[in-house]
Amino acid sequence: VPQYARPLAQLIESLERLPGIGLKSAQRLAFWLLQADDESVQALAAAIANVKRAIRDCSVCFNYTDEDLCPICADARRDHSQVCVVADARDLMALERSGEYRGVYHVLQGLLSPIEGVMPDNLRIAELLERVKKGGIAEVILATPFTVEGDATASYIADLLQPLGVRVTRIAGGLPVGGDLDYADQVTIARALEGRRRVGADASP
Amino acid sequence: VPQYARPLAQLIESLERLPGIGLKSAQRLAFWLLQADDESVQALAAAIANVKRAIRDCSVCFNYTDEDLCPICADARRDHSQVCVVADARDLMALERSGEYRGVYHVLQGLLSPIEGVMPDNLRIAELLERVKKGGIAEVILATPFTVEGDATASYIADLLQPLGVRVTRIAGGLPVGGDLDYADQVTIARALEGRRRVGADASP
Repeated sequence: VPQYARPLAQLIESLERLPGIGLKSAQRLAFWLLQADDESVQALAAAIANVKRAIRDCSVCFNYTDEDLCPICADARRDHSQVCVVADARDLMALERSGEYRGVYHVLQGLLSPIEGVMPDNLRIAELLERVKKGGIAEVILATPFTVEGDATASYIADLLQPLGVRVTRIAGGLPVGGDLDYADQVTIARALEGRRRVGADASP
Repeated sequence: VPQYARPLAQLIESLERLPGIGLKSAQRLAFWLLQADDESVQALAAAIANVKRAIRDCSVCFNYTDEDLCPICADARRDHSQVCVVADARDLMALERSGEYRGVYHVLQGLLSPIEGVMPDNLRIAELLERVKKGGIAEVILATPFTVEGDATASYIADLLQPLGVRVTRIAGGLPVGGDLDYADQVTIARALEGRRRVGADASP
């Protein structure tokens, strides 16, 4: 291992702990930070130091926020009768990026996984039921991923919502747009076949 | 653009300014930091905040250090009569990683580039000449890269060192080990041909 001055070695070690950052990337980032203007470097350090203190859970949907409500729950232009259930804030942001969804969210903060010890009580499922019971919600869209955990979590929640008289839907699985059939795994192809719809003049919506 | 809480948006923006980190990576890192244990996050923030303050130039070779001498110049087991001239500390570390070099370094802190306004006075060339004039140096190895700027810088320095009676060498250019001829660019192939050596029983070293 090359001999770095201690403060530089510490920076490289800290950067290397970040996900997707190996030793080479950590070294590159450290050298870049040494050359960068002091203002940017201090802004980055402050942003990292502050983020955990400043961010908490939205009191309604459990998305990240620095106020009582997250920016989406606080937005009166969103459709508050439509609630999209997601595993985490990253999935929420992926849906936001599509620009297709105008409702609000409910962030479970994980997926059921008995193997990893994640049980219903570890997720924000009780809070979702409370939200629905309070009324004003017409549809709950289950947008957990199409994995064993994502499907199990969606089924579990669907069963609990059934008696509450709310419309419960699951996002569609199938071939990704632009994706080649040849490259798709067999489970995705099976799901795409299973979810097939009639097309043409006599197709019903 | 999705609506992030302000402290989260600021963190993502700061991370996105890092080299090789796009929006998606910045988001991934930000969410990871939100979930990471507080100790690691604060250690990273402190390492970033401190590095520019704590690091200065080695008074001999201009490598990064937090003391008067860098760890290499301070190491009595290194051969201080052999000085390898590199563009920057990253190249120095690349040479260190090879484990092949036991001499010391001189970090130019850049390469000559009239187009970008980098002139001899902007580099640590005068300091290199002073070092050689002081005596005790048997060989200067020019290890700037094989680019227009790297070659020009090496030639410029070689001309200045000529009258000082020190042995001046340039690292070898050629095909990378494990590199396929088919994938090498023509300049590399030309340099590999030009630098060819006799092999076999009667080859002189």
